[in-house]
Amino acid sequence: MAFILTFLGKGGVGKTTLAIAAAKQFATQNKRVLLATQDNSPAFGITLGQVVGHTPQNIAANLDTVQFHSATLLEKGWEEVKQLEAQYVRTPFFKNVYGQELGLLPGMESALVMNEIRRYDKQYDVIVFDSLGNQETLRMIGMPEVISWYVRRFRQVFVDSDLGKTVAPFLPPIGAAVLNVNWTADNFAQPTQEINTLLNQGKQILADPNRSAAYLVTTDDPAAIATAQYLWGSAQQVGLTVGGVLSNQANISDGFAPLSISTIPRKSGDDWEAMINALPDFTQATTAPKPIVIDTSNRQVSLFLPSFNKQQVKLTQYGPEVTIEAGDQRRNIFLPPELNGRPVSGAKFQDSHLIISFQ
Amino acid sequence: MAFILTFLGKGGVGKTTLAIAAAKQFATQNKRVLLATQDNSPAFGITLGQVVGHTPQNIAANLDTVQFHSATLLEKGWEEVKQLEAQYVRTPFFKNVYGQELGLLPGMESALVMNEIRRYDKQYDVIVFDSLGNQETLRMIGMPEVISWYVRRFRQVFVDSDLGKTVAPFLPPIGAAVLNVNWTADNFAQPTQEINTLLNQGKQILADPNRSAAYLVTTDDPAAIATAQYLWGSAQQVGLTVGGVLSNQANISDGFAPLSISTIPRKSGDDWEAMINALPDFTQATTAPKPIVIDTSNRQVSLFLPSFNKQQVKLTQYGPEVTIEAGDQRRNIFLPPELNGRPVSGAKFQDSHLIISFQ
Repeated sequence: MAFILTFLGKGGVGKTTLAIAAAKQFATQNKRVLLATQDNSPAFGITLGQVVGHTPQNIAANLDTVQFHSATLLEKGWEEVKQLEAQYVRTPFFKNVYGQELGLLPGMESALVMNEIRRYDKQYDVIVFDSLGNQETLRMIGMPEVISWYVRRFRQVFVDSDLGKTVAPFLPPIGAAVLNVNWTADNFAQPTQEINTLLNQGKQILADPNRSAAYLVTTDDPAAIATAQYLWGSAQQVGLTVGGVLSNQANISDGFAPLSISTIPRKSGDDWEAMINALPDFTQATTAPKPIVIDTSNRQVSLFLPSFNKQQVKLTQYGPEVTIEAGDQRRNIFLPPELNGRPVSGAKFQDSHLIISFQ
Repeated sequence: MAFILTFLGKGGVGKTTLAIAAAKQFATQNKRVLLATQDNSPAFGITLGQVVGHTPQNIAANLDTVQFHSATLLEKGWEEVKQLEAQYVRTPFFKNVYGQELGLLPGMESALVMNEIRRYDKQYDVIVFDSLGNQETLRMIGMPEVISWYVRRFRQVFVDSDLGKTVAPFLPPIGAAVLNVNWTADNFAQPTQEINTLLNQGKQILADPNRSAAYLVTTDDPAAIATAQYLWGSAQQVGLTVGGVLSNQANISDGFAPLSISTIPRKSGDDWEAMINALPDFTQATTAPKPIVIDTSNRQVSLFLPSFNKQQVKLTQYGPEVTIEAGDQRRNIFLPPELNGRPVSGAKFQDSHLIISFQ
């Protein structure tokens, strides 16, 4: 079970360099480290000082690196889809489509990379993930929760709909003829049980700052600071704990309370020592504010939403769940049974927290 | 019909600043310009010097700006899906799901932004699109071609499959009961006709350097140069013409032949003049090498693939079409009738071009 660490910030602030430094630091602490990059250009190898391949290779004691290659991951993923299909469907029809011919669409890379990180979770103590470090990265990390919402929402809509009721009688004969499963509208989500397990694993890793955390990186450029603050708030919206701030070659003292700010010196040539020594203890992300705290006894949910003001945070209840919009992300709060179904009795925005009370 | 211009390069090289300068330049040339950004943080407004909204607003003569907000676009898009559904399906079941509760998944933003740019195509002469400027942007731009491939490939697979044949008898009664259309396996793609038209429009815009082009941006940082070169090659894989190179506060003379390189001076405070004057004539992208040239009389297809070497380019024919893999993108070549179905008789890699001959 690995601790997954990533960095968020504007392009060019030094996220990749700091990811490399963090990986080197963990490796010297005798942790088995995988340094994985989503950057497919040769730029990562130039910054690291050596060429990196599409499968993990050892580059120093305890330190492996890999450059994720989506086209390769898509081939691998497609083989798994075909195997699953062969297992569940009597006459599979994907078998004549080859992984090698599939093109990549937006979003596919995120899903493939998430799945690949999960694969390495057991082999390493730490996975330092050199991500894009932007909103798209947060959407990737938020995928398990958002997909879970789509599954439960649309399953219910389908079951309740006239279409669902009309199609239902036709499903068992098709199921009997074509599929090995006994398929009715009500167990619509049945073949996705395996997927649900994966989604739950993803949500558990995200909810635990011992298992995953992000750190912000910024320089003293006002646009870089604004981006870091924005990503800080946006990270909370997907449930990702932000452990602290790395101020790269700059002295920044405010704008990020209550996070601690580490000032990082410029790397001198190939000497990583000074930079590594300036890094914080990344496992201290456990002391940072939690994105969400659910207090069933007081019937309150508290969401940490730094960098947004009251006007930028919207609380709605159009569907069956409570929806929070802030920045460019929405979160549907999956409530525990004690609060589920209760109407919202009030909400206030206080000290960067949205506190929602239920009747 | 607008000319759509975007910039590619490593984070932090100045893409946003140059996009703003380019928009200002076009506006002074009496073109109606939309400067649109995908960056949702306040950083864009800081660089521009004023706050930007989620709908276009005029900020200078001929110059409007907009900051795309995916959550808003998703709401708008969802309303359209519901209207389409109401039109084609007798008992729509999406009607009880609200645009305001939908969460954002990876890739959605790309699809929404593409669609939004299309909306503005008729209102402006130039759309300067401040994109992420990376591989994900190229996947977004390549979407119409890749989706078209998925549609034609999977439609055929479905029609040919045992599943297609088994399901076919059940489809007309369901179609008659639930849908307003007469649905058989063979017109599987029928309800997507509207989508096909959109995809074809997208492909036409991309294929014409009078309608769309990208310029590379780099500094003298070796990682930035390597990224620009990599994105140059990758852009060809999605069929996007790269018109030239902007060398930001740096003197770069080689590595990008035959493209022209413009040296861009540092912007002094709020004075954009010197930067704007140093910009190239962006409409000259028409003189840059074309991503693909199909010569039916000589039965040859020539693909321009700069920055890749022979070993990095793979040509395969697993499926019914010829697939090219280079960098982290695959392209399935849709051949004209004269070449369609002919086997490949040879291929050579020469002067950054992959030349494929057909029997």
